[in-house]
Amino acid sequence: MRWIRFDTNGRAAYGIVDGDTVTEVKGDPFVGYERTDTRHRFSAVKLLVPVEPRTFYCAGLNYAEHVIEAARKRGQEPNLPKAADIGYRANNALVAHGEPIVIPKDATERIQYEGELVAVIGRKAKHLSEAEALSCVLGWTIGNDFSERTWQANDRTLWRAKNTDTFKPMGPWIETDFDLDAAQTIIRVNGSEKIRFKTDHMLFGPAHFISRMSQYLTLYPGDVVWMGTEGAPENVKHGDTIDIEITGIGTLTNPVVREGM
Amino acid sequence: MRWIRFDTNGRAAYGIVDGDTVTEVKGDPFVGYERTDTRHRFSAVKLLVPVEPRTFYCAGLNYAEHVIEAARKRGQEPNLPKAADIGYRANNALVAHGEPIVIPKDATERIQYEGELVAVIGRKAKHLSEAEALSCVLGWTIGNDFSERTWQANDRTLWRAKNTDTFKPMGPWIETDFDLDAAQTIIRVNGSEKIRFKTDHMLFGPAHFISRMSQYLTLYPGDVVWMGTEGAPENVKHGDTIDIEITGIGTLTNPVVREGM
Repeated sequence: MRWIRFDTNGRAAYGIVDGDTVTEVKGDPFVGYERTDTRHRFSAVKLLVPVEPRTFYCAGLNYAEHVIEAARKRGQEPNLPKAADIGYRANNALVAHGEPIVIPKDATERIQYEGELVAVIGRKAKHLSEAEALSCVLGWTIGNDFSERTWQANDRTLWRAKNTDTFKPMGPWIETDFDLDAAQTIIRVNGSEKIRFKTDHMLFGPAHFISRMSQYLTLYPGDVVWMGTEGAPENVKHGDTIDIEITGIGTLTNPVVREGM
Repeated sequence: MRWIRFDTNGRAAYGIVDGDTVTEVKGDPFVGYERTDTRHRFSAVKLLVPVEPRTFYCAGLNYAEHVIEAARKRGQEPNLPKAADIGYRANNALVAHGEPIVIPKDATERIQYEGELVAVIGRKAKHLSEAEALSCVLGWTIGNDFSERTWQANDRTLWRAKNTDTFKPMGPWIETDFDLDAAQTIIRVNGSEKIRFKTDHMLFGPAHFISRMSQYLTLYPGDVVWMGTEGAPENVKHGDTIDIEITGIGTLTNPVVREGM
């Protein structure tokens, strides 16, 4: 099942997508819903971020090649994470499929995409074993962990490097039927393929992360867990368009705009 | 004006405190409110966390002595932050005044309080100058940035060291009339004073932090900014009670309980 969150007359609603038809629901996929008689054409609705999380979790470094390449660029030895220690991103930075990533005037040219699988938590959960961890996942979406590398290298935290407004595109929808084992992540800039990797080629998979997190943290409906990216991203610039495709989910597309251009 | 958020028949409501009387309002201090005719005795209401933030910001290292003492304990040179780079905490960890801080069974004995001033954002804001930054603050509350130091030193992120469920007491209320310049923060364990400092003796004050943050981030009503702590905290243990007093606001009190004791 494919869930979208969309704007209808200035109000956010959830809908179920079937081909080009969206069936609006009363309620939402987290607390419960009923299908209404209201239908929309998918191509006519304005998509919103599929969920505004209570907590926005992000694995950060979770694919070996990405860690090794980033270390090489800094002239350092790679330091692969030894445990599934989750990190955080911030809600202010979220934008939907199609919305622009807006680069502040004082950002450097070192601005880059990161294509990530996102687990969307569907129910309250604590103390889950790894075997049962994915039972709390409602479905899967796509994130672009957009980053300003100069700030990332020099600031004490990742606040503006990762969480500047619009730096966290997420969407286009939540797909509940997804085969992680078969999935590939493909990143394109202006239609040209830049990075392709097996989505499940992670250091620590979603079941392991969620189980470990849930030993200490209560997960809540609507929380999201971004699973990290692979490869060595390149800089993008004003006017570029970034596609993050995860096969079996869809494609998250966002243009890049520099403030004041 | 003193705002509380409280439980009334399983529903969260906001109220205005006047002596021992709480006037329940319709709405909230962020989107707007009307006073109702419903009154409660303050001593009879169950306090909730005064706000569930959209984004939970935390300055982390923001008082010189705290940074110097923490470095000394690790046998390292202190490294004072050179800029107001904000960090993050997570909503799952929030608990209200009076609720227990629950220590997981596998936590070490190195568990410590940190008493912090908290700015509560009242309106949407971006690109604020330092002079106008505090105009977006609704009021002030108190936070205890409770920490497991062994995890803090060894994990790649602060996820469980700082964000284990119940590790972020906040409250008891939001005070809108507050003189930061005159305020003192006093931390007591079982009634015995442990740390006292001038609350505004920060490396970077709230106006500076909020102005800098707002150059990149949109602040939203209900966001909170925890301003850091001073001094060298000591370990606490099962059965202890921690008071964080900030003069002009009030006292946040939470007992410490170890799981399985």
